Amino acid sequence: MLTVVKIGGSLFPEHTDRLCEYLAKSNEKIVLINGGGDFANKLREYNDEYDFSDDVMHWSAIKCMDIIGELIASRNKHIQPITKLEDIKKVHDDGKIPLLLSFEILKSEDPLKHSWNITSDSIACYFAHRLNAKLLILTNVDGIYRGNIFSNDKNLIKSISANELLIFEETSVDKCLPKLLIKYNLDCFVMNGIYPERVLCHLNGFHTINTHIRR
Amino acid sequence: MLTVVKIGGSLFPEHTDRLCEYLAKSNEKIVLINGGGDFANKLREYNDEYDFSDDVMHWSAIKCMDIIGELIASRNKHIQPITKLEDIKKVHDDGKIPLLLSFEILKSEDPLKHSWNITSDSIACYFAHRLNAKLLILTNVDGIYRGNIFSNDKNLIKSISANELLIFEETSVDKCLPKLLIKYNLDCFVMNGIYPERVLCHLNGFHTINTHIRR
Repeated sequence: MLTVVKIGGSLFPEHTDRLCEYLAKSNEKIVLINGGGDFANKLREYNDEYDFSDDVMHWSAIKCMDIIGELIASRNKHIQPITKLEDIKKVHDDGKIPLLLSFEILKSEDPLKHSWNITSDSIACYFAHRLNAKLLILTNVDGIYRGNIFSNDKNLIKSISANELLIFEETSVDKCLPKLLIKYNLDCFVMNGIYPERVLCHLNGFHTINTHIRR
Repeated sequence: MLTVVKIGGSLFPEHTDRLCEYLAKSNEKIVLINGGGDFANKLREYNDEYDFSDDVMHWSAIKCMDIIGELIASRNKHIQPITKLEDIKKVHDDGKIPLLLSFEILKSEDPLKHSWNITSDSIACYFAHRLNAKLLILTNVDGIYRGNIFSNDKNLIKSISANELLIFEETSVDKCLPKLLIKYNLDCFVMNGIYPERVLCHLNGFHTINTHIRR
């Protein structure tokens, strides 16, 4: 079974080289997709000040993901950027990891609402559904917390239902993800990409630090 | 005769709305092309710290131009983004101004060296050549100066040959532009896009504050 691994934009560029080295060691069949990082944050800044249309922000944010994806892939010979789902098998057969640049597919299928509540987490979830794959979201914290993430008074959640997550105000995943997990009947793990040895451990089927979001 | 008007990325987002309103008043046939602004600057930062390949930087910077181009166009109903040179005439016939998103064309023609000395100024120059058009470069200063641009001891150059400009260290245009102006036998004007009334004045054939780079 495939695993869609979403590399949070916050991990680029500092942590992505090492993360990709570890991912290349996994025996799992992986499809990478990445966030928009600093570029998407810049778009948000523009939007806060100048109020652009939801449409132009949606498509621009996805173009930002493609740019960061190309940058990540350019630094690791095991990673092959692709723009079509049909290319996944060929890249796996070549012993490489496909990294999906999703602008073209999303532009033609347009499956998601154009809103800031939909980010690359939801996009990764959509592709996990399309590919009948597992979903692993890598961010720069250990998972989803109860309490304020910036305070000492926070607790990492080991397991939570997507339904319960619906009522959380702000988490390390986007606001629409729990809805999509319910809609597509998918589980998801959220974990820290700064510690790629944990990621490899998880991909190889062992227990490690993360949050399991149950369908 | 067409005029390729290059909107410097430094003018976005603060000055581009007003600039575009003025450009829409001109009777000249204009083709817009824009710089990569904050996004291209972010790429440079990444490159300074992590040393990416020239190829991935070149194409990523051009994708950044496309993103900013879409954002500029999304705010003015007179501006129509296009990805093919063949669409220019139709957009003009509709009474609108085409804004060229150049990634697709450049990816297929690949006419320019992949280097940081080639930026959107050189790309605009290439398209002025392709379209047999005049070239106007809008930046956030009045033109090209002798002396340090940040000191009081600077003088705006009214007219200079591309040949003489070749030996300048740093100017408000990219380092490769004078070479391309010579190669393509083109003149170019550089002026301040923060004062769109001057730009309109220039497009309408009147003299105003700028630097004329002679072929």
